Amino acid sequence: MNNDGNIKDEFSLIEQITNEFSAYQEGVLVPNGDDAAIFKPGPGKGQIVCVDTMVEGIHFKRETMSPYQIGYKSLAVNLSDIAAMGGEPTYFLVSLAISPSWTSVELKQMYQGMKELADLWKIDLLGGDIVSIRESLVVTVTAMGQVEEEVRLLRSNAQAGDILFVTGSLGDAAAGLDYLLNPDNGESYKAIQAPEEEYSYLVRAHQQPAPHIQQGRILAKFAKTSRISLNDVSDGLASEANEIAASSKVKLIIEKDKLPLSPALRTYAANKQKEIHQWVFNGGEDFVLVGTLPKEIVKAVQTRFAQENLPFHLIGYVTEGNGEVSLIDNGREEALPKQGYNHFG
Amino acid sequence: MNNDGNIKDEFSLIEQITNEFSAYQEGVLVPNGDDAAIFKPGPGKGQIVCVDTMVEGIHFKRETMSPYQIGYKSLAVNLSDIAAMGGEPTYFLVSLAISPSWTSVELKQMYQGMKELADLWKIDLLGGDIVSIRESLVVTVTAMGQVEEEVRLLRSNAQAGDILFVTGSLGDAAAGLDYLLNPDNGESYKAIQAPEEEYSYLVRAHQQPAPHIQQGRILAKFAKTSRISLNDVSDGLASEANEIAASSKVKLIIEKDKLPLSPALRTYAANKQKEIHQWVFNGGEDFVLVGTLPKEIVKAVQTRFAQENLPFHLIGYVTEGNGEVSLIDNGREEALPKQGYNHFG
Repeated sequence: MNNDGNIKDEFSLIEQITNEFSAYQEGVLVPNGDDAAIFKPGPGKGQIVCVDTMVEGIHFKRETMSPYQIGYKSLAVNLSDIAAMGGEPTYFLVSLAISPSWTSVELKQMYQGMKELADLWKIDLLGGDIVSIRESLVVTVTAMGQVEEEVRLLRSNAQAGDILFVTGSLGDAAAGLDYLLNPDNGESYKAIQAPEEEYSYLVRAHQQPAPHIQQGRILAKFAKTSRISLNDVSDGLASEANEIAASSKVKLIIEKDKLPLSPALRTYAANKQKEIHQWVFNGGEDFVLVGTLPKEIVKAVQTRFAQENLPFHLIGYVTEGNGEVSLIDNGREEALPKQGYNHFG
Repeated sequence: MNNDGNIKDEFSLIEQITNEFSAYQEGVLVPNGDDAAIFKPGPGKGQIVCVDTMVEGIHFKRETMSPYQIGYKSLAVNLSDIAAMGGEPTYFLVSLAISPSWTSVELKQMYQGMKELADLWKIDLLGGDIVSIRESLVVTVTAMGQVEEEVRLLRSNAQAGDILFVTGSLGDAAAGLDYLLNPDNGESYKAIQAPEEEYSYLVRAHQQPAPHIQQGRILAKFAKTSRISLNDVSDGLASEANEIAASSKVKLIIEKDKLPLSPALRTYAANKQKEIHQWVFNGGEDFVLVGTLPKEIVKAVQTRFAQENLPFHLIGYVTEGNGEVSLIDNGREEALPKQGYNHFG
């Protein structure tokens, strides 16, 4: 872990905090603390690696997320990418660019948020960097994981005849953010305060999403002998489905009445007279898994998910095509284009 | 590689650019382009991983570094950490937070700078993230490498009786930055323009440092049977020497008259009537390697470096102690404390 001369105190603090991260993984040869860390990979395992950055004012606001939640989520979004490859997470690294407005207490809380997930999944912090920045806080997390060498849960794996599935409900995170940002709720920006009981599920979906690692591991087992495509829903269902369709050169058909919508989402939309379409298709940050699998294994996969008490929803199917996604709503088919997501309008 | 809705054009551009990064490594199972990449590690190799962040206005200014150089250096500083563990680099990931003032052409140049080093060391880009930020550009590079499992080039390896060495001259990068920042040079901020011929060596040391990977590999071979400590000089000789001394619980003695100073550095300091002490000890960013090794192997290591036409300088020795560093200057011994480095004063 290197440091920047300007922020010596934060550095000592974070060095102290990160020392409290437990060593779960047996493969660590040189832990965090030298120029770089060294680990010994599990035999016969492919090593997974990915990186994601969250920027203050772009991906989160201090008013809608506590430092603890910012830390938690910055790791969660990376573990979600590991899940989308069917992997078990192993290690992570954290690079922080800290602006002067952040206190030592807040930075400590941020690491505690990461630690909740690190302890849950028994992954080790292997290093990082701490630098100063003038304005916005920037958190970059690199996550590593491992998966059986033969497993390929790729976007390009969909084929005509396959069934489309998701592993959880859609639109909750976007509705939770809407709740936090909407001044009509009487009290806006209630990140740290408790939200109204019935909406706390939605707010948590935005602030502390649970990466679907167990779900990815189940699919990885089936992927040893079957062709399964998989993405995590970070940019919204429309965007992810279009990515699978484009990579696989097929057409995906989504049946609107089959989409899993949580009771909290329906209640919130009804009470606040809001349209849920945008949240469900383009809201993003649901961090459930979406993918396709051959008809023949649907039953077996459903059974496996049920045995582990995990939701598994069939929401459509795959036909011949050239990278399109369609939505079927009351028998009518309409195109569902990819759409960018702008977190704060 | 994920993207941010706001900066769709830059995303497409960078996707296009990164497709041009060649696939050198045979171990890639799933390349850049899915949720995460997967690679198969070399058998019997420890996997090295590290991350470093560079922030506009803190670690570089647009006036002293071209976009090409910013890209080059952001990768170089990470490869230097791999070198300090004795590793051969294999993969890297790039996370960019882009502010509106950066053009597509400049971003492309930044990746071309990385590509120069990636091609030189035959390493593959395995992924990344691209997000928007309001003000300063932030470049975070995660680098991976591999090293024989038994090699441990740790800071904590120094013992009394060892010899202290560096693998290149000190202070050049700081002098190069001084040249670029100093208005007395007639024309300040000449990042892109050619500097006066005799100082171009110093300017290049600041803008495009060469990671000492070959040097690290030589030391790794000796480290299989000998105890060698090693750091890269990112924060200045004083800081790195103090890290080794503290981790190893010994005292390091640096002999001032043995320090390798380049002719360009001496000329620049003389011509501009500058004091070089700060540059050499606290300037930082030299990215040479500093370490200690047992007396018995000094000759053999010197010979090996000479065979590869690489400099290797003995600059002091190790005694019993408790984490201190001393400088011997004309027979007088003075303490050399760790000192933070503030890039732009």
